[in-house]
Amino acid sequence: MNTSFVLAGHLITTPEPKAFSVLENGYLVIENGLIQGCYSSLPEKYAALPLQRYDHQLIIPGLCDIHVHAPQYAYRGLGMDLELLEWLNTHAFPEEAHYEQMEYAQKAYGQFVHDLQNSATTRASIFATLHVPATLLLTQLLEQAGMRGYVGKVNMDRNSPDNLRERDAKESLRQTEEWLTQTASFRRVRPILTPRFVPSCSDELLEGLAALRKRDHLPLQSHLSENENEIAWVKELCPAASCYADAYALRGLLEEDGSVVMAHCVHPTDGERKILKEKKVLVAHCPASNTNLCSGIAPIRRFLEEGISVGLGSDIAGGYELSMFRAMTDAVQVSKLRSCFDPLKPKPLSLSEAFYLATKGGGQLFGQVGSFEKGYQADIVVLDDSRIESARPLKVEERLERAIYLEKDVRITAKYIAGEPVKLSTPNQ
Amino acid sequence: MNTSFVLAGHLITTPEPKAFSVLENGYLVIENGLIQGCYSSLPEKYAALPLQRYDHQLIIPGLCDIHVHAPQYAYRGLGMDLELLEWLNTHAFPEEAHYEQMEYAQKAYGQFVHDLQNSATTRASIFATLHVPATLLLTQLLEQAGMRGYVGKVNMDRNSPDNLRERDAKESLRQTEEWLTQTASFRRVRPILTPRFVPSCSDELLEGLAALRKRDHLPLQSHLSENENEIAWVKELCPAASCYADAYALRGLLEEDGSVVMAHCVHPTDGERKILKEKKVLVAHCPASNTNLCSGIAPIRRFLEEGISVGLGSDIAGGYELSMFRAMTDAVQVSKLRSCFDPLKPKPLSLSEAFYLATKGGGQLFGQVGSFEKGYQADIVVLDDSRIESARPLKVEERLERAIYLEKDVRITAKYIAGEPVKLSTPNQ
Repeated sequence: MNTSFVLAGHLITTPEPKAFSVLENGYLVIENGLIQGCYSSLPEKYAALPLQRYDHQLIIPGLCDIHVHAPQYAYRGLGMDLELLEWLNTHAFPEEAHYEQMEYAQKAYGQFVHDLQNSATTRASIFATLHVPATLLLTQLLEQAGMRGYVGKVNMDRNSPDNLRERDAKESLRQTEEWLTQTASFRRVRPILTPRFVPSCSDELLEGLAALRKRDHLPLQSHLSENENEIAWVKELCPAASCYADAYALRGLLEEDGSVVMAHCVHPTDGERKILKEKKVLVAHCPASNTNLCSGIAPIRRFLEEGISVGLGSDIAGGYELSMFRAMTDAVQVSKLRSCFDPLKPKPLSLSEAFYLATKGGGQLFGQVGSFEKGYQADIVVLDDSRIESARPLKVEERLERAIYLEKDVRITAKYIAGEPVKLSTPNQ
Repeated sequence: MNTSFVLAGHLITTPEPKAFSVLENGYLVIENGLIQGCYSSLPEKYAALPLQRYDHQLIIPGLCDIHVHAPQYAYRGLGMDLELLEWLNTHAFPEEAHYEQMEYAQKAYGQFVHDLQNSATTRASIFATLHVPATLLLTQLLEQAGMRGYVGKVNMDRNSPDNLRERDAKESLRQTEEWLTQTASFRRVRPILTPRFVPSCSDELLEGLAALRKRDHLPLQSHLSENENEIAWVKELCPAASCYADAYALRGLLEEDGSVVMAHCVHPTDGERKILKEKKVLVAHCPASNTNLCSGIAPIRRFLEEGISVGLGSDIAGGYELSMFRAMTDAVQVSKLRSCFDPLKPKPLSLSEAFYLATKGGGQLFGQVGSFEKGYQADIVVLDDSRIESARPLKVEERLERAIYLEKDVRITAKYIAGEPVKLSTPNQ
């Protein structure tokens, strides 16, 4: 496959959160699947590369969804009148139990992968279920779709329903080893260790996963400080920990290598924020889910001021929209409401900041991803916004703003991941 | 036109906010444009009426948007990083000034009416601009589209830019009279008095409008207690008033006939809530706009507990979505966030409550509108949700929940207003 080429169009990216960087009628040069650079006119030395013109269209980095539960996609938009723990027991757990049946998994994961493939998301960090065969199926479907990112077989050996719990830590670790062995052949989609959250994982299991992580240098994803009842429960289960994050740290799960992503972090204590910073944990901010499940609004402005890394997650099906454009506008909106209620009056996120979180912010989980800077993976999405009518001419940045807010009327024309074109199977009309 | 007929399908309505009333495979009988009743099997005496089958589809009352600025539709989704007063000066006012040009109005209002016609909204209470010719054009386009509701020529004679201000109260009232005379021929879309808000209307203008209202029994719409800076400004402008609502009441604008709708009411004092209740003012709750412009979250639970009437508004372009499904889910979401932050911990709105607000709650502005109870106007929308895939069979109520949250994947099959079919010009794919 030829992964060296040139795209022409309006280039928009956020190397820094504070503003969009816009190059109108620019040339984006890709060499061997990596961004080589952005140019106002095409340098002579790249004249021989295949050139694809997207005149008048918007060319942006691919979007990164760093927290999404694939098995929950099939019932998104249901049960939105419940809080976290009740919602897990009523909807999430019974649904996930179905993935023991491969026929069900084939149908439901097929739909998820189809929609993800046709979205503006290029990379994702995905929770599957505890079932190894269905998790491998999901990985295979994503790999075939040309998507990249991580898929995790979930670990859970306590405080879970009988039909969705592994017998004990040993069994869970054995299944994890089996799963890891079977993922060896996948090139685009790689495994990520996925203890569900402290309440559903015994100490022995967490410690076993920490050992695996160290041995195989694996990334890790989990949940943290989402809901006040959940936090109180973790305090009961792990009285030795100074905070929820410390319950992971005590078991050796938070190593300082930037490969740990924790979803939510809605109610961090000062001590917890200190751990997030020191351990280089990436926060997956999931504004829709935190709203729908009455969890609250995460203090993202504070995280950014303190140098804690943040990306965005759709958190299907706590969130009901797979779209990372919606995640951006949700992030802006909840930050505005937080500024209305938080006595510290944190400045709301700007749209360029939310765009940064959905690209370069979350992209760091996958390496150099989410920007058009030299050396970054060539993850690219091309947007045709011509169906959004305007009564007057707009600047390119204004067009992007409207495309993000009015995403329903935007057509995704092309999508590349690490320089590989992704087949878009729906016209997305 | 024959406005007596029968529809067959799954009937869903909210005569009371607390729960959906569902009749699976029911028959909805319409006589002379009014709801006659809902039946499990079709009574013999209606057997001769034309029967339209919408088997497997969802049949709901039409949705009511009781606060929307038609001239702002053309730039929805722009300038979402500003607060109210700054946003008005930067975007709303310059845009509205364009409606002096009929060519611009034709283009922009044409797009607005097209999209409204093809949405699930059946009735709307609409702000135009201060320009009489453009306001009449908008009314005509809506009338031709088969839509119903109110359109208001805006009054503003102070604190507004030179190119969007009437010379004085007399001139504003003279233009209003001219506009009222010219609306006489319209049958479906009727005039509503529309002083923009206290800051842009002199006392003399407000008093003149009160006299017109009394003389012609006209409904009235305006803005109330949206933003804290705005409220402080009103206090300065009208020191005699005990609260913002009282500034309208003192000029005789709030009569106790249920035909006044006030948008926002985000920051009501105890005294203001008392006025809203006593004067039977209908509150247009605009959750998206109140979020986007950092205004806050209106205390809807408290309004409902105190017996204050509430409906929903899209508030284009403070809100950027015309969809009243989105207004419902926004209303639920912000109520959840309010419950996280308000020390009173008000119970979040349920989806049936939000549905009630978008139908019968707001519908009362237009008479007996927004329900399938006998004698109500036959405003009906038929939804095909078959593109929302589900891995397991769902109850009708669960299907409606998903249709509301996942509205992008729902097709509007048919729409009737007062028993008249509305032509849907886009397939809404």
